[in-house]
Amino acid sequence: MESTTTQTLHVDLGDRSYPIYIGTDLLGQAELYQRHIPGQQVMVVSNETVAPLYLEQVLTALNGFQTASIILPDGEKFKTLAIWNHIFDALLNKHFDRRCTILALGGGVIGDMAGFAAAAYQRGVHFIQVPTTLLAQVDSSVGGKTGLNHALGKNMIGAFYQPRCVIADTNTLNTLDDRQLVAGLSEVIKYGLITDAAFFIWLEQNLDNLLNRDISALSYAIQCSCQNKAQIVAADELETGQRALLNLGHTFGHAIETGMGYGEWLHGEGVGAGICMAASLSQKAGWLTKGEKKRIIALIEHAGLPTEPPAQLNPARFKELMSVDKKVLDGNLRLILLQGIGKSLVTDNFKHDDLTATLNEYGNAN
Amino acid sequence: MESTTTQTLHVDLGDRSYPIYIGTDLLGQAELYQRHIPGQQVMVVSNETVAPLYLEQVLTALNGFQTASIILPDGEKFKTLAIWNHIFDALLNKHFDRRCTILALGGGVIGDMAGFAAAAYQRGVHFIQVPTTLLAQVDSSVGGKTGLNHALGKNMIGAFYQPRCVIADTNTLNTLDDRQLVAGLSEVIKYGLITDAAFFIWLEQNLDNLLNRDISALSYAIQCSCQNKAQIVAADELETGQRALLNLGHTFGHAIETGMGYGEWLHGEGVGAGICMAASLSQKAGWLTKGEKKRIIALIEHAGLPTEPPAQLNPARFKELMSVDKKVLDGNLRLILLQGIGKSLVTDNFKHDDLTATLNEYGNAN
Repeated sequence: MESTTTQTLHVDLGDRSYPIYIGTDLLGQAELYQRHIPGQQVMVVSNETVAPLYLEQVLTALNGFQTASIILPDGEKFKTLAIWNHIFDALLNKHFDRRCTILALGGGVIGDMAGFAAAAYQRGVHFIQVPTTLLAQVDSSVGGKTGLNHALGKNMIGAFYQPRCVIADTNTLNTLDDRQLVAGLSEVIKYGLITDAAFFIWLEQNLDNLLNRDISALSYAIQCSCQNKAQIVAADELETGQRALLNLGHTFGHAIETGMGYGEWLHGEGVGAGICMAASLSQKAGWLTKGEKKRIIALIEHAGLPTEPPAQLNPARFKELMSVDKKVLDGNLRLILLQGIGKSLVTDNFKHDDLTATLNEYGNAN
Repeated sequence: MESTTTQTLHVDLGDRSYPIYIGTDLLGQAELYQRHIPGQQVMVVSNETVAPLYLEQVLTALNGFQTASIILPDGEKFKTLAIWNHIFDALLNKHFDRRCTILALGGGVIGDMAGFAAAAYQRGVHFIQVPTTLLAQVDSSVGGKTGLNHALGKNMIGAFYQPRCVIADTNTLNTLDDRQLVAGLSEVIKYGLITDAAFFIWLEQNLDNLLNRDISALSYAIQCSCQNKAQIVAADELETGQRALLNLGHTFGHAIETGMGYGEWLHGEGVGAGICMAASLSQKAGWLTKGEKKRIIALIEHAGLPTEPPAQLNPARFKELMSVDKKVLDGNLRLILLQGIGKSLVTDNFKHDDLTATLNEYGNAN
């Protein structure tokens, strides 16, 4: 399994359809950008970690456009309204108009902030995603979810806003630190669990190759993940139904991220522990066998992800944090639970006692 | 011309179509709200001026829903990201979910902020406009433009987001102060100028009735304005073309508002002076006769609106402020100009010297 060809997937959303390019050496391909930038002005939004590595390469490839860049501080704790406003400062100082394009060069935080800025600047300008972390390449850059955190809840302020294309250059994974690589694996494992049992089995067999940064294995995992996501998003862009499956482990995970303070736990780490908690609750509900639960937790653990929430968050605090989840409807908490490996559902039809028992398994019972 | 019946107009936008109700005693009509609120939770967003007058009446009519309210400070200078965040504080503190409705009770500032909050909260919740100023009833509550100001430009951060209905209770105009009433007239006059010559003539004949708050005259003016706006918005929701006509006088007006500090000049006052400047430039371009220009300025003046920009803004500063206008494309300033009364166009085809001469007419030539 070795290839340096570029794979192109498509997110099918009518007149908002767009391609996802996955391959090596994409960042410097001027033609790729030219194909998807309709105007003259391009604002690159990046962060202090990524910009020194890749900004120059991207700006060189954008030669011929009127370019500018804004470098934000790195980390989830900066995904705030106040930092978001820096993007508008830059756009207005440069007199960027309605035909401009905002290009996100970075991980999930940069993609979320730049995407929401593109949705809101002059009520909407063009947007391109250039994800540079595994998590962003397999998940957050695809599907149009953009947003910011609020002190009381993660991703509570945002928009559905689709990019014109996603350019996932796997070379950028070479500079990703181990903790970030591992964090991205939780979203990869998620796809296997919610809909794609064959991919889950492949992951069980190939996880070491991913951890060793085998480029073929990583490319395959990114393609499988994006293919799964593109299908789900195409069927339910605005998450009125099945798209919520993509949130497996996320209600628990978001509670951890918010409760610990944004950035203490990486998003993917929260999701890793959250998947284990969802598996545990699914098993208590009688939908998942003990053997399946064990396989899930073993894979999360093997990836180097946390399998338990932090001890500081007791069950009462957990429930409070989970109560502002976007999937709560009319006061009812809804969760993504598993009915097997590769089979999931969105439901409020679980016993509250089982949830309490799941939280108590880990909580310090304060 | 006397009537206490409710008039219902429609904004035709496919599955985002909605009614505009115009009449007396609408605020307390529980049935109106019930018809357009699909969930259980309603957050009323109002300000310190309007809430003491009308909040209780609205909350009483919303009896049966789970209601809460957030009272913002009153004025254009508070249309900022920081104040906007207070709406999310309130929503999250009350655990409002994705099925909630945000109801704007106030003038244009409240409508813009609450509407953009509805667009962004959990990536989109329901929204209802209850405009309580003339300006909001004739213009800003209809058509889905929402947004916030940035220090460098007005309405630069926002979304197109349509309400589920607009409830314009003309009783609320009884408590409007004279300055606010007059400010609303500039948008009324705008409709006559851009497309509706007959309405302009009606305004020339009936302006005193409007200034004397004759309820029949006001109702007629609101209906004509909303009818004109609904037609234009239905044809071009996202302002890719003709919708820009609604911005007659606004590029000049926004420059005044931003340059003087938000709130020093009311939006409608800026638009009043801006219409006179647009008329002056149109006459210089040879499209408008001197007689037509005089009639326009006379009507603006008779309404009690400013016909000239503030002396503090010199021509150079004016041009700098106008250069970040949302209608600028590829560096070219586009303006709405008049080719007669009731006939307008969006164009960058004017002589730069004529614009300079127009600004010099008023500027202190610093």
